[in-house]
Amino acid sequence: MKFVQYQLPDGSIHAGGLMDEGVYALNAPMLDIIAGKVQPELGALVPDANMVAPIKPGKLLCVGRNYAEHAAELNNPLPKKPLIFSKFPSCIIANGDTIQWHSSITQQVDWEGELVVVIGKTAKNIREEDAYEHIFGYTIANDVSARDLQDNDGQWTRAKGMDTFCPLGPSIVSKDDIPDPHALKIKTTVNGETMQDGNTSDMIFKVPFLVAYLSQTFTLEPGDLILTGTPSGVGKGMKPPRFLQSGDSVSVMIAGIGLLTNGCEVVG
Amino acid sequence: MKFVQYQLPDGSIHAGGLMDEGVYALNAPMLDIIAGKVQPELGALVPDANMVAPIKPGKLLCVGRNYAEHAAELNNPLPKKPLIFSKFPSCIIANGDTIQWHSSITQQVDWEGELVVVIGKTAKNIREEDAYEHIFGYTIANDVSARDLQDNDGQWTRAKGMDTFCPLGPSIVSKDDIPDPHALKIKTTVNGETMQDGNTSDMIFKVPFLVAYLSQTFTLEPGDLILTGTPSGVGKGMKPPRFLQSGDSVSVMIAGIGLLTNGCEVVG
Repeated sequence: MKFVQYQLPDGSIHAGGLMDEGVYALNAPMLDIIAGKVQPELGALVPDANMVAPIKPGKLLCVGRNYAEHAAELNNPLPKKPLIFSKFPSCIIANGDTIQWHSSITQQVDWEGELVVVIGKTAKNIREEDAYEHIFGYTIANDVSARDLQDNDGQWTRAKGMDTFCPLGPSIVSKDDIPDPHALKIKTTVNGETMQDGNTSDMIFKVPFLVAYLSQTFTLEPGDLILTGTPSGVGKGMKPPRFLQSGDSVSVMIAGIGLLTNGCEVVG
Repeated sequence: MKFVQYQLPDGSIHAGGLMDEGVYALNAPMLDIIAGKVQPELGALVPDANMVAPIKPGKLLCVGRNYAEHAAELNNPLPKKPLIFSKFPSCIIANGDTIQWHSSITQQVDWEGELVVVIGKTAKNIREEDAYEHIFGYTIANDVSARDLQDNDGQWTRAKGMDTFCPLGPSIVSKDDIPDPHALKIKTTVNGETMQDGNTSDMIFKVPFLVAYLSQTFTLEPGDLILTGTPSGVGKGMKPPRFLQSGDSVSVMIAGIGLLTNGCEVVG
């Protein structure tokens, strides 16, 4: 099933199941479904559902340089172990929302289309062979990155963690529908022009290894997200480099999961 | 007032006011009080209150090298702008809880006593002169750090973000009780021996500047925490370096705020 969240006019947020006809109400909050506390059951069709991001996680763990060609395009060596950084829950925006930044803060905003693992069952010090038991499903993120801050700050907290810098969704696809997360075409376009055209088979560190590795230092909680890295084709790697501009539309597509599209706006 | 949280035997967590006689129940959840939605009123005395960490924030923003002597003891240059990194909500433990780590992951666990700003009113692109309006109060953290991971990983996410690596509390002191957050003695001891003995007056970037600076890139939400950096006297700066061991007891004291004490345990 494809799981989404929608917002009612009173501001409350609810879980839904996305079907061809539209969004059906589900019988529990998304986090309870993700944590396996409630077996999801479809209720009534929600007319004109206002879809928001499919989850607000406790934490977002990200893996850098997890595709060899992407490491190469930015002149970085291949990592010997996963390069871990993070984004904030306050970065998350929905499909259709606008990525925003101030030109006084950054002038080098770049895209990174990524497969996202959504944790289901709490994971702490788990073995690689048990990793899939702890995964609820998969979604899509754009790991938007301010390259100038990334280069100058040392730590990537501001470069990766700005408000609106994590478009997420539109839905979470349950793991039953994705038999192998390492066999998915992943593509990023800007204004319809293909920028990234990869396959998750090219990940250096695979999903079960990443879940086990991260669980050695962090308790992975239901709803936590792992952004698994981006293929080659980011703007900074182009000659000359190309960055997002006001009015641009950036889309990330992963086969079998969906299409995540966001506009861009320089504010102030 | 000193604000705490306590846990009932059913697992539920509640806000309380800490007085000389003990903890009194408050009339709303801590986050509603912090956000100013509810004016706090003391209810009944809670017998044998099981105090937990005073808040579970949405995000923890940390400032590195914000005391000149600490930057010098680790041979780092003085920062020209705040060095920002983060910890995870899942790092937080309460006063009296145990800091834990695996010897296979790190063997260089160090202390960093820090003054913590607790955000009250949402802050986005605010001016320095308005910063105090957005602060609810202050508490204490130990920014526990795995120095070997910090040196080797590049990004500090694992080094700073491990489970149990953010002892916090025991209480949040409302800003009315702290007329100047830059006039507080701050002291860290290990097994009673003084390691850090500083004063928040030595911060390079002061609290109002930090709140305004961070609000340029992140929306600061009610309950979010800013760890304002540590004075000199960390274990890595000693000759020879000294790190935490199983059985150690580490305390951070800030005058007018309280005393945060935690044991240490190497697990596995």
